[in-house]
Parts: sequence; structure tokens; C-alpha cells
Amino acid sequence: MSAPAASAAFPTAFSPAETHAMQVALDAARQGPRGANPLVGAVVLDPSGEILSVGHHRGAGTPHAEVDALAGLRAHGPLPELSACTMVVTLEPCNHHGRTGPCAAAIADAGIGAVVYAAADPTAEAAGGAAYLADAGVAVRGGLSAEQALELNQRWFRARAEGRPFTTLHIAQTLDGLIAAADGTSQWITGEAARLDSHGIRARVDAIVAGTGTVLADNPRLTARDAGGRELERQPLRVVLGRRGVPEDAAVRGTDGRFLQLDGRDPAAVLGELAARGAGHVMIEGGATVAGAFLAADLVDELVLYLAPLMLGTGTRSTGDLGIASLADASRWRWDPAGPARPLGADLRLTLEPLPLARHNERP
Amino acid sequence: MSAPAASAAFPTAFSPAETHAMQVALDAARQGPRGANPLVGAVVLDPSGEILSVGHHRGAGTPHAEVDALAGLRAHGPLPELSACTMVVTLEPCNHHGRTGPCAAAIADAGIGAVVYAAADPTAEAAGGAAYLADAGVAVRGGLSAEQALELNQRWFRARAEGRPFTTLHIAQTLDGLIAAADGTSQWITGEAARLDSHGIRARVDAIVAGTGTVLADNPRLTARDAGGRELERQPLRVVLGRRGVPEDAAVRGTDGRFLQLDGRDPAAVLGELAARGAGHVMIEGGATVAGAFLAADLVDELVLYLAPLMLGTGTRSTGDLGIASLADASRWRWDPAGPARPLGADLRLTLEPLPLARHNERP
Repeated sequence: MSAPAASAAFPTAFSPAETHAMQVALDAARQGPRGANPLVGAVVLDPSGEILSVGHHRGAGTPHAEVDALAGLRAHGPLPELSACTMVVTLEPCNHHGRTGPCAAAIADAGIGAVVYAAADPTAEAAGGAAYLADAGVAVRGGLSAEQALELNQRWFRARAEGRPFTTLHIAQTLDGLIAAADGTSQWITGEAARLDSHGIRARVDAIVAGTGTVLADNPRLTARDAGGRELERQPLRVVLGRRGVPEDAAVRGTDGRFLQLDGRDPAAVLGELAARGAGHVMIEGGATVAGAFLAADLVDELVLYLAPLMLGTGTRSTGDLGIASLADASRWRWDPAGPARPLGADLRLTLEPLPLARHNERP
Repeated sequence: MSAPAASAAFPTAFSPAETHAMQVALDAARQGPRGANPLVGAVVLDPSGEILSVGHHRGAGTPHAEVDALAGLRAHGPLPELSACTMVVTLEPCNHHGRTGPCAAAIADAGIGAVVYAAADPTAEAAGGAAYLADAGVAVRGGLSAEQALELNQRWFRARAEGRPFTTLHIAQTLDGLIAAADGTSQWITGEAARLDSHGIRARVDAIVAGTGTVLADNPRLTARDAGGRELERQPLRVVLGRRGVPEDAAVRGTDGRFLQLDGRDPAAVLGELAARGAGHVMIEGGATVAGAFLAADLVDELVLYLAPLMLGTGTRSTGDLGIASLADASRWRWDPAGPARPLGADLRLTLEPLPLARHNERP
């Protein structure tokens, strides 16, 4: 057996401590919510390779993983000289001013001596962090566990590459895949805990889309509310898709001006319009026609499926026609790496993402 | 505040050690498979209240929980005098010769000095164990955590009271509740691990029922097979429901004579016929018509739902009409107390039982 060849792109060797720290950082990254920002984790190692701090990104508008890990150092007590410490991070530190400052500068300013990252940031506006760090005298190496890091955010990178928001499809259905009974009753399929969880998603997204059918049938407000029914401070743009008229007194119109109606026939055009309005994360609320249109266009990046322990037999299905005739052409998904299922009251929350195309032949 | 009144039915007090041991026994019971026998757990306590052994029933034909707990004592090393020990068991020890000997006699013969049980055995053929033990000089007390123990086996007791086998409905479906694509393709919705798990159920049951539609469409063998496709030693009776003819060369007929066709219009009559043939546990394999008929008749005691991470949009639904028009009348279930979901390869196995009627207003 010959020794494995060094990677041409990343000839650098990594220590066992750095390799282990990267797995810890990847695990931390998986705890974050998917959305407008990628999942990122970061670990600070002392000169002996011990972990001083672990950070991860907790959603748009909150500190990036690197800053979170630096903040964690403060709770640590006496610290070694940071110039002798290494930060291990799953994505090349960003170099842009978004809602937060650039991480590359934060790392250099903190005096961290070395950075190991997994994957280069492929987005034009955030790239350049490694070069910034090197210029600032930080020893930078990349490529450790790069494939895992890229796969962790495969759908986020794809959304970015397509210049569109990251999308989360929300479905609340019975065990037999129905979102309303035969007589149209649908409130409530799921219990309070699941509904509160979905309001948490509403509060994180920039826009929420629903079809005119849902709006006319249920007259939903599409606002993010707390357990007491009070509207939260941060509210998504409320977007109704379809050409049917939305009544003047429809609850979805609200009074804050954050309401929009779009022709929903082309989901990609809808996302383009929302991207132009600054949306980084869009929640697809339903119903079946809208869900089916986004699924058929492969424009769903995350699926949050609340499964109520009910059976109805007949009623409204959760998804419309996806243009799939045969099992071999089924839309394929995989469970979220942070865990497939989580009980919420009497219901179960399932979280999935589309199976990367390269994995289509790998089902066990 | 007045002191709580002593129970008229069970005036006996229980020690904290016995109360704790009963919870351990209930937890152990939940690990067993549901089927022809009730879920039962047993714990042996030493005179100081320490747990010496925990046992549970692992399925028809295997030792009962009490015998399992006694067997566990052998691995324990030096033991105290058993006449000073107490066995804590979730169900009154049985007094009948089934596939195994009576537990009451096994406990008395082992020399156990005292027995605490939760619920009396309400089945005529197994009852009388407490009286046998008392006659044998064992100090017997009942009623500790009786409600929990009865609820654990609520559907089993109900099946017994109705003089019918316990039933397990098996469904392997996509996320959107389909068991076949629009063109009829259905092999395989789930992966190997899930299929192997369902063959494990086949090997435990006495009979497996499927509709003529499934038999004509898929030509299944309905046998229990191992990972290599070889037939296991224990095979269920293969029962086809429906009036359409089953072809002479249909795989389900097999060559062992363990094949039966019944008119499936009355699920209760089907179960009555199978009870008369000695079946204690019946697996309902499908398809949608048969599943729907048993669900609509409230004759499903356990639901094993394999959920494949696929979406099809259009195809064959997993259940037929249940006669439910409105959400308020939905068929209500609860997750198995041993856990709602278990990954099996790329799929997820969900296990549920019907929500007891008394709990219908308790959804969180």
C-alpha cells in the first residue's frame, strides 16, 4: 500500500487535534437553524490542542460562529496567549459587512495566531477572508474536512448560486398525509407546541408565502405570534400567491404595509422578486398547490413536517402534483443531520433536506 | 388538608423501594414487542430494597417477565435468602400453562417470599395467580400503579375482551402518505433495513392478511425472510382478503398449505375466523382498502409506519375511506411509550397505538 497522495489544492497537513476540533465544529454547526446564513461552527484550540471554546451560528442577525467562539473565551477564565491559539472553523471566515461585522477582522483583532478552515466561501460578497487574515499576519490553512463542510450547506450554497433566498417548506399533516378533512376543517391538525414552533420559523424568515386558496379558506394572518397569541417584534413580509382576489378585509393584509400579492405560477420568479426585496430566507406556508409548485421546481431547501398522530382517510393532501409518474423518479430527501424527529407535544417534528444528487444511488 | 384515604380495593401500603421498582418494571415492560401477549416487566428486590434483577417479556413463546427476572438472578453472584426478597411485577402473575409454564408456580418454587403486582390479570384463563401464590405462602399485594399497568396494555386487554387477536397494521409510505407511484410502481418505497424489520414482525405474528388488490398487483409471497432472502423457520398463516380469484400460480399460495382466502368485507369476522384457528397476533399488510377497513372498524391495535424520505405527489394513498368527514372525528393515536421514531437505514420507523378514548380531550 502506498501512502495517500497529498491534495494538490491543499498540501497542508493537519494535526489530530485540529482534525478532531473540526468534527466538533461541524457538530456545533448542525445545531444552528437553516436559513439566510450558512450553518457554521468554530472551535478555539490552545497551544496543546485542548478545546477552549466552541461556537456556532444561531441564525440571521446573531453573531457568526467565529465571534460566538471568541465570546465563549471570556467565560473561560485565565487564557493562554491568543497568538499561540488556533481557531478551527467550518467555513472560510467572512470578509464582508452584513448585519454583523466581518469575522476575518474580528479574529485578527482578537489576536488569534492561526486559523484552520474547512471550505472556502464560494459567495462573492463574503469571500476574501483568508487573504485578509494572511495579510494581517495570521497563519491560515484551508481544506480540512472540506467535503463535509460543503455538503452541510449544499442547499444553502445552491440557493446562493441561483441568486435566490433559502426556502423552508412547512407542512402540518396527519399520519396519512392530509392537511384538511373532507369537510375542509383543518384547525388544528397539530397541537400548540408544534404551532408555536412554526411561529418561531415565521419569526426568523424574511417572507412567508401562501396560496390564495389557503387565504380564502382559512383567512390566516401569517404573522409570527408568541404562545399568548401576541405578535412578535420581527414579522415576515406576507406574500399571497395567485391571481384570485384577496378580500379587502382579509386578515393577511394587516395594517403594517408588509403585504404583497404575486402571480404564483412561476416559483423561481416569486423567489427572484423576493430576493430583489432583500429576502434571504422564505417560508412556504402552503397549501398543497403552492407546496407542490415549489417542490416540483426543486426550490425547497428545507422541509419541516409536523406529523400529528391522526388519521383522516379522506381529505386534502399535503402536496399537489409533482410531475412524478414512477417511483424511480421520486423526489428524494434525507433527514436533518441534527436528528430526524423531535416530539413537540403530541406531535412529531420531522426535518429534512433534499438528497444531494450525487447521493441518489446511495440509499441503504 | 386531610390524609389521603386508603383505597378500599387495595388497602395495602407500598414502600418507596417497591414504588420505584414498579416504575423500573413498567419501563422494562415497554421494551417488549406488542403482540399475542401483554407487555409485562418484573423486578426482584433484596430485603433492603436494592434491585437484584429486571426482566421483561420479549414476545410470544419466550419466557414471561417473572421467569426472565428469576433467570437474571443467576447472573448476579451471591444472593440473599430469596424468601426475604420481593418480586415487583406489572401484571398479576399468570396461573396457566400456555406456551410456557405458569409464572405463579415458578415464583413460589423459586422461594420468593413476597410479590407486589400492579394490575390483576382480567383474562379468565390466566387469572388466579395471586390466589395460587397466597395458598403457597407467598405474601401477595396488588394495585401498585395499577392504572399505568392497565393503560400500557389497554389495546391488548381490549382485544382479549373482544375474543380476537391483537393486530398490527403495517404501512410503508412516502412522506406524503403514498404507497405506490402513479404508474403503480411500489418496490421499494422503503430500504432494506425497514423491510428486514417488517420481516421480523412477520416472523412474530400468527397470520398476515393482505387484500386481493395487493396480491394481484405485486404478487407478494407474504413470508418472513432474513436479510439473504431465505425463509425463516416460523412462518405466519398467509391470508388473502377479498372475493377476486387468487391465481393458481400466485406466490402467496406457497407449497406449505399455510394459505387461506377469506371474504374481507367484515374485518371483525376475519379476526374471529383467525382466532378460531389459534391466531393471537395478526399483521395487516395492506393495501389501502384492507388497511382502511380495519382502521374504520377500530380493529388496529398497533400501527407500524415506515416513513421513507420520498415525495411522489400523486399515487396510491396508504389508507382508504375511514368514514371520517370532519377533523373533530379524526382517528386519534399516540406514539409508542418506548419512543415515537427509530431510524432504519434511510427510513424512519414510527410506532403508535390508538389513543385511549378517555384521553381524547387531553391533547396538549
